[in-house]
Amino acid sequence: MDLFEAIRSQRAIRRYTDEPVPMDLIHRILAFAVRAPSGGNQQPWSFIVITDPSLKARISVFYRRSWDEVYGPPERAATLSRQVFSSASGLAENMAEAPVLIMACIKHDGAPSSLGRGASIYPAVQNLMLAARGLGLGTALTTLHKRYESEIKNLLDIPDNVETAALIPVGYPASPEHFGGSRRRPVLELTYLEQWGKLVN
Amino acid sequence: MDLFEAIRSQRAIRRYTDEPVPMDLIHRILAFAVRAPSGGNQQPWSFIVITDPSLKARISVFYRRSWDEVYGPPERAATLSRQVFSSASGLAENMAEAPVLIMACIKHDGAPSSLGRGASIYPAVQNLMLAARGLGLGTALTTLHKRYESEIKNLLDIPDNVETAALIPVGYPASPEHFGGSRRRPVLELTYLEQWGKLVN
Repeated sequence: MDLFEAIRSQRAIRRYTDEPVPMDLIHRILAFAVRAPSGGNQQPWSFIVITDPSLKARISVFYRRSWDEVYGPPERAATLSRQVFSSASGLAENMAEAPVLIMACIKHDGAPSSLGRGASIYPAVQNLMLAARGLGLGTALTTLHKRYESEIKNLLDIPDNVETAALIPVGYPASPEHFGGSRRRPVLELTYLEQWGKLVN
Repeated sequence: MDLFEAIRSQRAIRRYTDEPVPMDLIHRILAFAVRAPSGGNQQPWSFIVITDPSLKARISVFYRRSWDEVYGPPERAATLSRQVFSSASGLAENMAEAPVLIMACIKHDGAPSSLGRGASIYPAVQNLMLAARGLGLGTALTTLHKRYESEIKNLLDIPDNVETAALIPVGYPASPEHFGGSRRRPVLELTYLEQWGKLVN
């Protein structure tokens, strides 16, 4: 698979076939995940691979609750395109049906959570998703479960000095044509030269 | 360029030739950056492309100061491998020499900075770096400037509701053999099945 084609055609895949995902494929995408950079090459990541149906069901209850809290109010739902709303609410209802859930975690030093911490885990998450794309697997990057961070950590026995970063369902796409990129604003509208607000063209 | 080869051979490139980087290549890597996912497809990112020598010099002063504060103490320096320390301290001294600096920024709603916010910017940063790799450009993901977030935002005229996420130097590698991946812990040592601590094998 071509790098640029993989990047262009990545998109959130939120519906999966029942086909189980072989564990060696999960290991392969994780091996690509950890090629990503991390601050000082500290590699502070861990990944929990969740396939147990009852565990998936318990996690999905928290995910669904978060979805309802965040996107239940019509004015919040309206911040999503119709297509994203439909697809993402479907995932919120059926998260437990994904063949595999991967919880990406990051070890930290006890400092308050911050954007910068993400520089040492989300590049790995993106590698994971691109590698999955390259192997024909669908994924979606979700973080809504973090509204129930302590409950989820308790459920998965995650220690205090570790924060969850992403809950990533993985499966074979229900429709192969689901790959294919999605709409983005033109890059020149959000690129500035030398200073904020100074458009290039 | 093959996707898996790009992921495998990505590494921080911190020394560059003097060769200027054509602006159309910068636009190409940014166009790949914005293919990344973001929460609710909100695309909250902006990128400031910095080539002005005096501006690069002023930013590099803050970067260098942060480096000295964080890695000046020997016990902190010792958390880095000798190779990373040597290469990263070189970058801290010569950040202004990079042909281009890209400041990746994320718009937010005023909530405190958090790890989860990073899910909507660092996948784009990783796309940017992989695309650069595919085009023969070297990059490094740095966040040390965030110790001087307000000074940097002032310098670049970045508004209040925007947080900087990464300062990414870009240039042609001083040594082409610098691509080639770097050491990682075996993935099975940091992958758990169903629950934290339960190794797969």
